[in-house]
Amino acid sequence: MRVELLCTGDELVTGLITDTNSTYLEGRLFDLGVKVERVTVVGDVRPDITGALLEASARADVVIVSGGLGPTADDFTLECAAAAAGVPIEEDATVLGWLKERYAARGMDMNPGALRMARIPKGAEPVRNPQGSAPLVIQKLGRAQLFFLPGVPREYRALVDGEVLPRVRAGLATEPHRTFRAFRLLRTVRLPESVLNQQVMPLAPSHPRVVFGFRTHAPENHLKLMAEAPTQAEADAALAAAEAACRAVLGTHVYGADSSGYAPVLLDLLARAGHTLAVAESCTGGLIAQDLTAVPGASQVFVGGAVVYSEKMKSTWVGVAPEVLAKHSAVSRQTALAMAEGVRTACGATFGLSVTGYAGPGGGTPEDPVGTVYCALAGPDLEPRCERVSLAGDRDRVRLFAAAHVLEMLRLHLLAAPVSP
Amino acid sequence: MRVELLCTGDELVTGLITDTNSTYLEGRLFDLGVKVERVTVVGDVRPDITGALLEASARADVVIVSGGLGPTADDFTLECAAAAAGVPIEEDATVLGWLKERYAARGMDMNPGALRMARIPKGAEPVRNPQGSAPLVIQKLGRAQLFFLPGVPREYRALVDGEVLPRVRAGLATEPHRTFRAFRLLRTVRLPESVLNQQVMPLAPSHPRVVFGFRTHAPENHLKLMAEAPTQAEADAALAAAEAACRAVLGTHVYGADSSGYAPVLLDLLARAGHTLAVAESCTGGLIAQDLTAVPGASQVFVGGAVVYSEKMKSTWVGVAPEVLAKHSAVSRQTALAMAEGVRTACGATFGLSVTGYAGPGGGTPEDPVGTVYCALAGPDLEPRCERVSLAGDRDRVRLFAAAHVLEMLRLHLLAAPVSP
Repeated sequence: MRVELLCTGDELVTGLITDTNSTYLEGRLFDLGVKVERVTVVGDVRPDITGALLEASARADVVIVSGGLGPTADDFTLECAAAAAGVPIEEDATVLGWLKERYAARGMDMNPGALRMARIPKGAEPVRNPQGSAPLVIQKLGRAQLFFLPGVPREYRALVDGEVLPRVRAGLATEPHRTFRAFRLLRTVRLPESVLNQQVMPLAPSHPRVVFGFRTHAPENHLKLMAEAPTQAEADAALAAAEAACRAVLGTHVYGADSSGYAPVLLDLLARAGHTLAVAESCTGGLIAQDLTAVPGASQVFVGGAVVYSEKMKSTWVGVAPEVLAKHSAVSRQTALAMAEGVRTACGATFGLSVTGYAGPGGGTPEDPVGTVYCALAGPDLEPRCERVSLAGDRDRVRLFAAAHVLEMLRLHLLAAPVSP
Repeated sequence: MRVELLCTGDELVTGLITDTNSTYLEGRLFDLGVKVERVTVVGDVRPDITGALLEASARADVVIVSGGLGPTADDFTLECAAAAAGVPIEEDATVLGWLKERYAARGMDMNPGALRMARIPKGAEPVRNPQGSAPLVIQKLGRAQLFFLPGVPREYRALVDGEVLPRVRAGLATEPHRTFRAFRLLRTVRLPESVLNQQVMPLAPSHPRVVFGFRTHAPENHLKLMAEAPTQAEADAALAAAEAACRAVLGTHVYGADSSGYAPVLLDLLARAGHTLAVAESCTGGLIAQDLTAVPGASQVFVGGAVVYSEKMKSTWVGVAPEVLAKHSAVSRQTALAMAEGVRTACGATFGLSVTGYAGPGGGTPEDPVGTVYCALAGPDLEPRCERVSLAGDRDRVRLFAAAHVLEMLRLHLLAAPVSP
């Protein structure tokens, strides 16, 4: 199956936004064993869009198009699709009904712009958008099947996962001389990509049916294993053998597989043991709390987070003694330990975590330059511990890796020595 | 001048990396008044690269190509360029000299792979790479001028800035009927895209030289204005007139322009007045604190944030009376007001903000279903105020829009009634 992507929008060709939608879709298609052959990006120019649709349709079996489906005057991708197919564009009663429902549910009037979203090429099939107004539209053009998606990333991803990929998968199942594939993503933290590479690549020659790949998704590094074989059973067996070998080498560095994110894994570990958690953050400024609370049901485990951005709040909220701050400064092992113990006590939580450091660009001392972060963990039957880390990169990167580091201190502790609540 | 980009590499079509090189180059070209017409991305497949080179050269005056210039077996972009032009590829003595110097300076032997980088299409012009080994190569193909750049972002940017853009600028200066452009992005919050469209599109006919465009970057909506005229002065004047007309209609909904983000604008407003800020977050879980503290120098304004994810912490950290929680529940106007006042007092800050609500997917009551959020603001000379909002979408979206809503309550208050500290 030959798949191409077409992305439209002036913002994509003038440097305003980066096309992350395609990265997402390419990765998901690759998981199905499909390598995208070409991505074309054009601005909001009618002849360019129409021409690109015709060209891609002449080459590909499936063309996935994004952008230009919204309510504004520069949204005319479907008009171009109608022109390319030589059919009129018409108001669709089903889509109009969806739009009316959606606007009514929000207590809003339909304005004339919104009506644009009900107009689709004659003969095309609309599919309801669970996250927004503009529907997914599916159209045949020559021998190609075209999928039109809104460019808003949340809507795009929901429609890719819920509607486009199942249809692509069904199409693959009917292909003759099919190669069967099986895929596993092993997710690691605190392991540089070069080290990950060094540890697993010696295993590759023993697994000839498995392609080893790597991807960096800061602060994590992922190992991609893809097995190919003439039957699904052989592909599954080859993948299972390679995965077991890699897991044996990587050990606890692998925190999860496939789509399981870090925060849900950690919260699940805590919840199953009946533990609760509290955090005190200085330089990460709420990043850890917001990452954990983004997970539905986090309130079962997460009790509270103190973003103590001033010395006063370090004392008021998490009980760091003013003498500790005066003697050792706010960025020190002693302050980090006092923050972790203090937030644990204040919240009555099983575990307390803390982070204090210099995220930059300002701040730092000769002994503790920008990028120095103290991470601490306090808990039951546990001598409070602090780790000092030196992180390279800008403010965002230091914050991101500091948050990952302190959370990983807790996960490794839970794996090594399960503690009863 | 018609400019296209061509990017090559399997990692770009399999979701491994996002093409940020193009975003960079598009922005720099747009600053020169050049809008890229098309970006094409293909994998490491010889006929695909050769074909894309021929197609782009037939359409464009300038084609900027990246990737596939390195030392490994999958680096064959210049071989495709030679094939497209019908010329042989030959070792270039000048490039060979640069490579020898570079390897000698680093005390390394030239390996056979490195020699690949000295082979360029006959008749092409090499330009030394200040940051790496593979040179920039400039080649004519039909009427188009082709620039071949390495894909490593650091090398790519250095060659774009130092070599490609000066040549593009020189080419523009010789164009007979040159179009000059001027650009402005107006950033709004709390204004749905369809309303933004309705408010400004009636202005468009009065500004025929300005193209109006829109983009959604949740929770914000942006208005894009691009003026085109035969001279820069006329383009600037047309843009200024359109911008003034739009600002008059949109008023305080416009919080900033071009690259200025929301949090820096708000922090700057507060800092210039000598104000400080504290936040108490329930359902947003640290999102507001982390957004504000991501800005360098935030500690001048931001004192502390309490992520009070349990009733107990709402009382302990921000002093919500247990009776208020018992009588009105944690998600209520009364609790939100008490949180805002309480965190302001606890931190000794000029302003206190709070958010409490049901982000979902669980929770909610018949009166306050999932998506209901109470946002409150407390400050000096100000009756504490609370706004109840109903937000659609998933947990991430509710949190995002709730955070934006409460911050905007503060920004609008500051604009309406500046308060001395």
